[in-house]
Amino acid sequence: MKSDIQIAQEAKMEPIVKIAEKLGLTEDEIELYGKYKCKLSLDILKKNKDKKNGKLVLVTAINPTPAGEGKSTVTVGLGQGLCKMGKNAVIALREPSLGPVFGIKGGAAGGGYSQVVPMEDINLHFTGDMHAITSANNLLAAAIDNHLHQGNSLKIDSRRILFKRVMDMNDRALRNIVVGLGGKINGFPREDGFMITVASEIMAILCLSNSLSELKERMGNILIAYDLDGNPVYARQLGVEGAMALLMKDAIKPNLVQTLENTPAIIHGGPFANIAHGCNSILATKMALKLGDIVVTEAGFGADLGAEKFLDIKCRYGDLSPDCVVIVATIRALKHHGGVSLDELTSSNVEALKRGICNLEKQIENIKKYNVPVVVAINKFSSDSSEEIDFIKNFCNNIGVKAALCDVWSKGGEGALELGEAVCDVMENEVSNFKFLYEVEDTIENKILKIAQEIYGAKGIVLTANAKKQISDLERFNLDKLPICMAKTQYSLSDNPKLLGRPKDFEITVREVKISNGAGFIVALNGDVMTMPGLPKVPAANKMDVTEDGEITGLF
Amino acid sequence: MKSDIQIAQEAKMEPIVKIAEKLGLTEDEIELYGKYKCKLSLDILKKNKDKKNGKLVLVTAINPTPAGEGKSTVTVGLGQGLCKMGKNAVIALREPSLGPVFGIKGGAAGGGYSQVVPMEDINLHFTGDMHAITSANNLLAAAIDNHLHQGNSLKIDSRRILFKRVMDMNDRALRNIVVGLGGKINGFPREDGFMITVASEIMAILCLSNSLSELKERMGNILIAYDLDGNPVYARQLGVEGAMALLMKDAIKPNLVQTLENTPAIIHGGPFANIAHGCNSILATKMALKLGDIVVTEAGFGADLGAEKFLDIKCRYGDLSPDCVVIVATIRALKHHGGVSLDELTSSNVEALKRGICNLEKQIENIKKYNVPVVVAINKFSSDSSEEIDFIKNFCNNIGVKAALCDVWSKGGEGALELGEAVCDVMENEVSNFKFLYEVEDTIENKILKIAQEIYGAKGIVLTANAKKQISDLERFNLDKLPICMAKTQYSLSDNPKLLGRPKDFEITVREVKISNGAGFIVALNGDVMTMPGLPKVPAANKMDVTEDGEITGLF
Repeated sequence: MKSDIQIAQEAKMEPIVKIAEKLGLTEDEIELYGKYKCKLSLDILKKNKDKKNGKLVLVTAINPTPAGEGKSTVTVGLGQGLCKMGKNAVIALREPSLGPVFGIKGGAAGGGYSQVVPMEDINLHFTGDMHAITSANNLLAAAIDNHLHQGNSLKIDSRRILFKRVMDMNDRALRNIVVGLGGKINGFPREDGFMITVASEIMAILCLSNSLSELKERMGNILIAYDLDGNPVYARQLGVEGAMALLMKDAIKPNLVQTLENTPAIIHGGPFANIAHGCNSILATKMALKLGDIVVTEAGFGADLGAEKFLDIKCRYGDLSPDCVVIVATIRALKHHGGVSLDELTSSNVEALKRGICNLEKQIENIKKYNVPVVVAINKFSSDSSEEIDFIKNFCNNIGVKAALCDVWSKGGEGALELGEAVCDVMENEVSNFKFLYEVEDTIENKILKIAQEIYGAKGIVLTANAKKQISDLERFNLDKLPICMAKTQYSLSDNPKLLGRPKDFEITVREVKISNGAGFIVALNGDVMTMPGLPKVPAANKMDVTEDGEITGLF
Repeated sequence: MKSDIQIAQEAKMEPIVKIAEKLGLTEDEIELYGKYKCKLSLDILKKNKDKKNGKLVLVTAINPTPAGEGKSTVTVGLGQGLCKMGKNAVIALREPSLGPVFGIKGGAAGGGYSQVVPMEDINLHFTGDMHAITSANNLLAAAIDNHLHQGNSLKIDSRRILFKRVMDMNDRALRNIVVGLGGKINGFPREDGFMITVASEIMAILCLSNSLSELKERMGNILIAYDLDGNPVYARQLGVEGAMALLMKDAIKPNLVQTLENTPAIIHGGPFANIAHGCNSILATKMALKLGDIVVTEAGFGADLGAEKFLDIKCRYGDLSPDCVVIVATIRALKHHGGVSLDELTSSNVEALKRGICNLEKQIENIKKYNVPVVVAINKFSSDSSEEIDFIKNFCNNIGVKAALCDVWSKGGEGALELGEAVCDVMENEVSNFKFLYEVEDTIENKILKIAQEIYGAKGIVLTANAKKQISDLERFNLDKLPICMAKTQYSLSDNPKLLGRPKDFEITVREVKISNGAGFIVALNGDVMTMPGLPKVPAANKMDVTEDGEITGLF
């Protein structure tokens, strides 16, 4: 079997100018980065502001399991399939983080015959967006310590600095550090730590901004610290948000690449899906909606986290409204939700599937709460039996939802024709009356409660003393009227990763409440979130190489 | 008077494909980064390997003073001037570091009407080379701490790790830090520190490599630590040099831009000029020599440091041989060397000039020791009197050296015609018989002594006990047969920045001797070298901004 990088390197890419041409773009509206990548000018949005938007399809999934569900691969495959059906489809995706590429095999460019290319570039420096975010983030961080050093006129409390440095690398040694050692000329010592770049608030801000001015405004709004009197200190007070915007002037432009079948793919922004909202940028989605008749996009993690945040955070700030939501499931994963261990997933087991399908059922119910039509994509594995496939299709039919089998990993777009038909059919015959789950004007506690009860199926929520204090602080500073960004395990509808299927009678414990005031959301943490990964015993980096002729090995 | 950014933004740039075409390059040999920047394929060198090289002109200077000498500006202006004279000239320059741009006004793209453009891009992320170096550097650093964490089979002594993390930001709080805090899952605590990216050994390696294989080989050679038995540990032993090379696969390609007068400029690499050798990459210079009939390049700091390292380090590893060296001087700076204070430099003062010209005299003598013809460029200021100009010209004539007045800041290439004529004349009528100052097979002490005596004019050298111990270690490990990279103040021929002119009867104290085994040189430090700058009270960043329409303010 060929590896992803082998398939990718054999791809017959078209020059990206050709892909852009097919989208009706002129040479002045794109900026080439080599022959197969380009940035899209924000003028495209202005020029097309009166043009009708395409249809928006969100791809999400059941709660992920180690058995795999292949959400990105289905997203890419569906885009390819729609194009094969003669539709003008455009894909909008997140861009992958560089650091994890060197840790454990990973990457976010699809797989098999449903990939975006050039995958080696997309997974490495791409067009430099991550580096621009790193620079902007670290300029602000340096400005904070410089402010302390130069007299601290804002009376920043060095024990309560919230804004951290970032690096796009898996580097556990940087999680907890002490900076500013070495005496007077080297600043004030204090505890600090690095996060990985995708966890930067700047990344979330990039993805939730509709323009460069909004980006700048939001960066100025970042709550960077509290002062010695306990009052909030914002980035704006250091006066570097203009320089930060300057560093981001190209990063704000969405990137255009293509799939293995030359379907246009706009890849832009990739915030964490726990402490942030986990979707590609609003600008990328908006641009795709102007350039394509159907836009296929995805959200991180399962539907309880990813779709919820897509709908309640991204759609709110981007004034977006999805026309259809595709929930990806695999029979293997549903059997795992039904209690089958990982090494027994290849045997047909309709009973286990019956037990595990409740996870899919709940995700479907959840999307319906937003008044958006749903299609289920069954991502095929060779071990799936016809009894199992029939069961899941019947289950969906019985609750009035279309389910389509797809085989995009090995067949590309050809493997998504049934799914493409189902999606088009639903968009033609069912109406989306999208509405948010909650109003931002509600209290923080009520907003969290609503998500926990309605989406997770919890009995209620428990706020720790710490969380209560943090909520009351945010209320006191009038920082509470923002959407909620839940940071919960992705593996369960509950906050306990071991509770698979559709857990009942559980409570969601909120341990900590933080604000990302620039990004514009309040993060409710249900447990520890790792914002700086580490490298494994034998990092993927150890297998990577490149020859003088540019042949790459070891990159997936 | 217009600012540099105003002049730069008014430039009539040609599309970079046109500039590349004029150099005889095909579309397949370049990779566009927007419309005005591109990367040059290393295949250009292979294709032209039998083509005769152009002539190589090195621009260097007297010891710099706060009065300014304008070496980069003369380099760009001379290139422009030669093109105006109908020559096929190509400029080769270092790329600027991002961090310092946000500190104190700076940048390395020339000035006035002798600039390389697009200067805002060149001074910001450019084509991402700095970011690639940062990533490769920090991957190796993360692999070191990961190795400690995962069992430390190499027995690395965590107190003797030599390889540091880097960031392209002025951030003093990162100079001295403790990493690995927070308990077992977060690694082993140890003292560490960040340098600015241009100080990374990876940068020096990039600039001294002739191919991707050599880059990889050299990165593997980096001495990263000593083990608990006191033996050297090399990067190769961690096995990530392949992944590092992969991160550098585009960064190794030189970048092509243009000057305000559309003269081709290849900008690539920019190592520190103290702990490293301070010149653009060998690949950039070699490529320029294949594409131009005359190549104008520069070296960091004054001739005692910059030209010496260019000739003894870069030319050695790149098999390069300069045809002419231009020494830039200003009458203001020479008067400062003659004892005139900064606020009195605008009055004509031939006596002071007579006292200060010994600095220029020594730099001329030094270049002649390498058997390379010399031309003096007098970079004109409006305050220069005709008596002063006559004096300096006569002085040079009397020692058989051509001196040419130039006015490139306000006139561009037009202001470098006299200089261009002098350079062409010298290259036609004088022969360069370039030879190195010392042989690498000599002992470390002798090599340092030779540079100190012959180039600086010192009586001798003093080695501290520390330096002696370090030299004997390097000899014991057979790491001593490398060229020397002196890390000395740039302001004086001596190691005391206050001794201007041509100091006599002094000794050079070597406090520390370090090896950059990957880059392939031994650094002899004469004092503390700052490898991580800080931000000033009011950073330049505070004045920067960019509008929705892309208008940039505050960037110089």
